[in-house]
Amino acid sequence: MTGPITTGTDLARLRELNSLSVVRALRGNPPSTVTELASRTGLSRPSVDLITQILVSEGWATVIEPTGSSVVGRPARRYQFNAAAGYVIGVDVGVHKILGLVADLDGTVVHTVRRQVAPDADPQVRLAALDRAIADCFTKTKLAPDDLWALTVGVTGPVDATGRTTLFTPLPGWSAVDPVAYLTARYPCPVYVENDCKLAAVAERWHGVAQDADDIVYVLAGMRTGAGLILDGTLRRGYGGAAGEIGALRAVRWLTAPSHLENCPGAPETISPDDKAAWVFTTARAGNADAQTAVRRYVRDLAVGAAALVLALDPQVVVLGGGFSRSADLILEPLHRELQRLCLRVPEIRASTLGDESVALGALRLSLDEADQRMLSTGLSALSAARRS
Amino acid sequence: MTGPITTGTDLARLRELNSLSVVRALRGNPPSTVTELASRTGLSRPSVDLITQILVSEGWATVIEPTGSSVVGRPARRYQFNAAAGYVIGVDVGVHKILGLVADLDGTVVHTVRRQVAPDADPQVRLAALDRAIADCFTKTKLAPDDLWALTVGVTGPVDATGRTTLFTPLPGWSAVDPVAYLTARYPCPVYVENDCKLAAVAERWHGVAQDADDIVYVLAGMRTGAGLILDGTLRRGYGGAAGEIGALRAVRWLTAPSHLENCPGAPETISPDDKAAWVFTTARAGNADAQTAVRRYVRDLAVGAAALVLALDPQVVVLGGGFSRSADLILEPLHRELQRLCLRVPEIRASTLGDESVALGALRLSLDEADQRMLSTGLSALSAARRS
Repeated sequence: MTGPITTGTDLARLRELNSLSVVRALRGNPPSTVTELASRTGLSRPSVDLITQILVSEGWATVIEPTGSSVVGRPARRYQFNAAAGYVIGVDVGVHKILGLVADLDGTVVHTVRRQVAPDADPQVRLAALDRAIADCFTKTKLAPDDLWALTVGVTGPVDATGRTTLFTPLPGWSAVDPVAYLTARYPCPVYVENDCKLAAVAERWHGVAQDADDIVYVLAGMRTGAGLILDGTLRRGYGGAAGEIGALRAVRWLTAPSHLENCPGAPETISPDDKAAWVFTTARAGNADAQTAVRRYVRDLAVGAAALVLALDPQVVVLGGGFSRSADLILEPLHRELQRLCLRVPEIRASTLGDESVALGALRLSLDEADQRMLSTGLSALSAARRS
Repeated sequence: MTGPITTGTDLARLRELNSLSVVRALRGNPPSTVTELASRTGLSRPSVDLITQILVSEGWATVIEPTGSSVVGRPARRYQFNAAAGYVIGVDVGVHKILGLVADLDGTVVHTVRRQVAPDADPQVRLAALDRAIADCFTKTKLAPDDLWALTVGVTGPVDATGRTTLFTPLPGWSAVDPVAYLTARYPCPVYVENDCKLAAVAERWHGVAQDADDIVYVLAGMRTGAGLILDGTLRRGYGGAAGEIGALRAVRWLTAPSHLENCPGAPETISPDDKAAWVFTTARAGNADAQTAVRRYVRDLAVGAAALVLALDPQVVVLGGGFSRSADLILEPLHRELQRLCLRVPEIRASTLGDESVALGALRLSLDEADQRMLSTGLSALSAARRS
């Protein structure tokens, strides 16, 4: 039985897989020889050799020539991923703040920008502040517009496929704006807008407390309560971008849960709701009975929505994030007890440690995913060109 | 730039993809020529030629020699998938009945067996009845044990990775039995046990009203209320096999929803709860005010759990299945209205038309998936062997 089993068309598919394997084997590793890369990818040395040469000619890898002289054989040259070949930005556009992160293609953060925004700022003011934050990223890192490979922005409320939040958002007037169109007109790279809870969930799996998990329910616990879902390792966006919005259902009590903290007897009347919640947690920790009751009632209500998600999805991990996760010492244990009462199988509950950078970090991760796609598709065409020549 | 870009190892991956493509292009199509298969798969004619020859030698395809004589050129031989190369079984083990389906590798049902079981039957009696139902499948279809490629059984309650329902099941005593061990000792093929709502959801995407959808919330509406989830085209099992069990949460009202039907004033006291629900739907349809109120209250409670799933997952379609879906004319419209009130984005709601075969059909589909895997892995080794010779 003879005859070729593969054709040029068939090989294109294979080359795509192979070049991705080599890029992955280079990134996040010390400089590597062709032999090391072949062993790490399972590809042949000649395949790896060809792919690394193309990566070098495209500027995505650098060659490190062997130093010194070995007495045994000829020392091999090594290859290193050129993380500075491109940059990505992730921005959290919140009610009170704008937080932007710039990273290289390895995901290493090279600049952080943080600006306050008035909670009642109208959308044009908020967009202008976003624009200035991004401009600051360019100035401080001396990047040219073409150096930016992707820009992702996180906002509150369900985000549809066009990046708009027409169903609902607490950002004043934001449901009327088109942030993708606004940013695309200013920056030449692909622009994405995504929901803040979803991005925070992505961040927990990338750099947070859920790196080992493929099935994650992220609960944002703060003066608003929200959720982001990662299922089978994939961010669950939903058919219309509105997954995770279970908090809108009165029956699961997330709408009213924070009111137990806000209405705690004894709290100073003059401070903001956020500060009042912080006061309640601090006072409860110090032993105040009213504050402890308020926290207990808050957790009991938080647990109903969390239980609905746990029963619906049976995740490996529940991550407690958001501002109140700073008081995880008062929340985790009673939350676990409530879930034991309400659920058939209780997953592990872990408190986020990413602080208020989680949304911007998740935005950075989505930007890096886009950069990976670009690298892959450009790499593929380069490989095909090499093959033809 | 020279040197081979592929190696023998790399090619094994490609062959797996290619042989699967050809099997898929053969199945569910009329007898096809190599040219037709090449065009349908995008593979080269020599590749398809080699793969079809192996499929024929393995008994998975048959050759149809050209009949008559063509005046233009030599008529081509055609290949047909041999669906009778193997068979699969799917069984629904319910509280009241055991329903088994036998199908060939194309999924065409060749035999159906249905047996009554007493609702209070102890697990050994139920397993014996299951055994007799499967034996009936073998007898009536004249299958030998080796002809059976996979056996999947659907049961009520969350099923863990070992096929057991230790958390909870309404089948008396069933949480103590190990149905996979029981059946594996009797039949030489792979055996799977899965939750009934999950299997019904699979059936809706395979042969039911959700064939166009990748994101499906299936709601089983009957004297019990349950859910099965398909997300991104994949059945959501959950980390511990307990996904879809949101009905266990009192706050979403599925536990008590059917009681509105059971306690409807005027219903005959002597009939079973199931018959009472049927009586309520019939009487409501005839205009009885009490029955209409009972249905309205039932739907209002059903909608809370459905809304929790819709808000959490934002599916494309909600499928209303289970015994009460026969009364979809009374349920769909008020359910849609309630979801509009409770949800941010309301998906399409469709009533199942698969009747009481849906769980067994879903079990059949999982058995066919296993058969596909077997075909693929055996085909792959045959291809490798051919390559080596």
